[in-house]
Amino acid sequence: MTTVRLWTDQDAAGDPIVSAVFADIRATRKSDFINNIWRGLANNPAQLQRTWASLKAVMVAEGALDPLTKELIYIAISTANGCGYCVHSHTAAARAKGMTDAQHGELLAIVSMASHTNSLATAMQIPVDPEFLHVDR
Amino acid sequence: MTTVRLWTDQDAAGDPIVSAVFADIRATRKSDFINNIWRGLANNPAQLQRTWASLKAVMVAEGALDPLTKELIYIAISTANGCGYCVHSHTAAARAKGMTDAQHGELLAIVSMASHTNSLATAMQIPVDPEFLHVDR
Amino acid sequence: MTTVRLWTDQDAAGDPIVSAVFADIRATRKSDFINNIWRGLANNPAQLQRTWASLKAVMVAEGALDPLTKELIYIAISTANGCGYCVHSHTAAARAKGMTDAQHGELLAIVSMASHTNSLATAMQIPVDPEFLHVDR
Amino acid sequence: MTTVRLWTDQDAAGDPIVSAVFADIRATRKSDFINNIWRGLANNPAQLQRTWASLKAVMVAEGALDPLTKELIYIAISTANGCGYCVHSHTAAARAKGMTDAQHGELLAIVSMASHTNSLATAMQIPVDPEFLHVDR
Amino acid sequence: MTTVRLWTDQDAAGDPIVSAVFADIRATRKSDFINNIWRGLANNPAQLQRTWASLKAVMVAEGALDPLTKELIYIAISTANGCGYCVHSHTAAARAKGMTDAQHGELLAIVSMASHTNSLATAMQIPVDPEFLHVDR
Amino acid sequence: MTTVRLWTDQDAAGDPIVSAVFADIRATRKSDFINNIWRGLANNPAQLQRTWASLKAVMVAEGALDPLTKELIYIAISTANGCGYCVHSHTAAARAKGMTDAQHGELLAIVSMASHTNSLATAMQIPVDPEFLHVDR
Repeated sequence: MTTVRLWTDQDAAGDPIVSAVFADIRATRKSDFINNIWRGLANNPAQLQRTWASLKAVMVAEGALDPLTKELIYIAISTANGCGYCVHSHTAAARAKGMTDAQHGELLAIVSMASHTNSLATAMQIPVDPEFLHVDR
Repeated sequence: MTTVRLWTDQDAAGDPIVSAVFADIRATRKSDFINNIWRGLANNPAQLQRTWASLKAVMVAEGALDPLTKELIYIAISTANGCGYCVHSHTAAARAKGMTDAQHGELLAIVSMASHTNSLATAMQIPVDPEFLHVDR
Repeated sequence: MTTVRLWTDQDAAGDPIVSAVFADIRATRKSDFINNIWRGLANNPAQLQRTWASLKAVMVAEGALDPLTKELIYIAISTANGCGYCVHSHTAAARAKGMTDAQHGELLAIVSMASHTNSLATAMQIPVDPEFLHVDR
Repeated sequence: MTTVRLWTDQDAAGDPIVSAVFADIRATRKSDFINNIWRGLANNPAQLQRTWASLKAVMVAEGALDPLTKELIYIAISTANGCGYCVHSHTAAARAKGMTDAQHGELLAIVSMASHTNSLATAMQIPVDPEFLHVDR
Repeated sequence: MTTVRLWTDQDAAGDPIVSAVFADIRATRKSDFINNIWRGLANNPAQLQRTWASLKAVMVAEGALDPLTKELIYIAISTANGCGYCVHSHTAAARAKGMTDAQHGELLAIVSMASHTNSLATAMQIPVDPEFLHVDR
Repeated sequence: MTTVRLWTDQDAAGDPIVSAVFADIRATRKSDFINNIWRGLANNPAQLQRTWASLKAVMVAEGALDPLTKELIYIAISTANGCGYCVHSHTAAARAKGMTDAQHGELLAIVSMASHTNSLATAMQIPVDPEFLHVDR
């Protein structure tokens, strides 16, 4: 069903970069579970390493946004990009970080509202108000 | 530059629905400023009314997510949908609600990271892990 | 397989808003069948109510476009947005409203032709002809 | 502002394929006006010829859908694909074919409603109802 | 599972246009295999004929780009458009034309990197550098 | 016109990470020119550093695909994602790496053909042929 091989743990053991990344995913998440996207990315060890390092820096490290807010944004983008895998994986991640049904419901209300007005602004080719340019910078 | 006429306040005064919506936008936002998308939507008064009512219910009413988080999600979707008008208007709205440069920077990091992994999951046609299905419901 | 629970009729009976919307869907469509998207939206009763009210106003009420034309446009957008569920549900709805195979075939020809020239205009970054701006407004 | 040269009529005169296509566009549309996308496509005469032949077969030839309905569908796709050039050119074409403001307003209401529910179905990963599969085929 | 009937060879035998196109696909590809998209397109014989003729002209005829490079570009677009069917069919086609795992891995790295920076440029609404406009034309 | 400040060289001089990345961009490209996206990303120095490091690894380092092919793929994705800035910057980059008009013309023909068949496969909800799954893995 995939276009690439999904690496098992045994496959990973044969490549030092892949096994190191898998070990770091497990240590970082405090879980033995490695989800399928990483098993697919293992086909290109250098990219597996870069992608995990970036994801860790963006999603795991402490920052200006809390972990749940980050997951909500990730679900929003995954929905707009039509990535079913990512919608599932990040909705699960958000629930694991405490997302309530009410918060999920509001997220979906905002996602659909934004999609609604995005299409209207595009169909009408609305020019940006000068007031927004002033506030933006 | 638009595909429809942008209604001035004088135009709005001639239509009871449009003038009522414009008045409610001003009262709700405590500002005299009506941005261009509403002036374009005025060409279809019934839709102007529905869209504003929905936006107010989703974005203005108290809920499970705070107002700034809502704007961050709105920016995320507007970016994924490539709506320049909406990116500007909601980035301005987020700043007005207190978004810091650090928060904006993190938002962009998450948006781009999600776009990155979304395309990977799609290109590899990764199947959803059963573990996610269990957590989702 | 979903990220939310799909409400059964029994679940719906326990919530006054959900049961009222389900009843109105049935009355409006003169059919006992409630399709899955409404059963998913029931998790957020206020949004279920808003979304159904808007859909009814846009798709069911008499207007300037006939019901079949409306469904063709809905299929077009659902295709461009890559929503398999929506492609299926609105293709079925269009057939129920009399769409012939020839009409469906032409719809797909237009959808694919538009996707074709959309990508060309974007790749060449073609500027809008002044003549169009004159006609638009 | 473009990534390719826009061919003038003088440029076109120097290429037999381009000049033939330009002549056919003028004869078909009964107008001397050649809009910019064709002037950009002239850089690849074979593709100019193929694209015009397809567009003519799909949009100009008599068929199961009337000319205005075809333009409405073209606008819908152009909006979903975020092509400003195409939104302008096909909104102008629709007006030239008699689209009223009321019809344009309803088109936008359907486009935005579809974008709204498309994102909801994707975010909830709603499975297709078996009933739709039965009607579709 | 489809919204249209998939034509068998027996169905095709009953239509002169469809049977001619199917024969040409087989002759061109030197294979008896006709994949599903052509069996779906057969419902609109004129479009089947146009689409195959264009695909043949673009993807099969000798040109300035080699056949494998063409498939890589096709996979890239199919990924960005979220078309699972097309990702599978063109990844298989690329492998049949000699794509190595290393080339596939790099393709995915570029696709994801481009999606990454595309979203950043949109979220920041970056203006085009005058230097690019100079080089482009 | 942007939602963030574009950093001048003087601004960059005040931040050690930004000035180091700017210096590396100049050394890598053997040019004093820093294009706007990097000046925008400078607002989040850590992300500027990560994004440049990834782009360098993917697009500059020797690999299995030649530099021009990489740029063609980048243009394809940027077109599908509707990023005008990226279409301009990578078309300019491709020309600088030797892209001919004929190659550009073919790229656009493939991009538009893929967008064409992508939408058809989605509108018909075509199932993946088992033959492709066999070749893919």
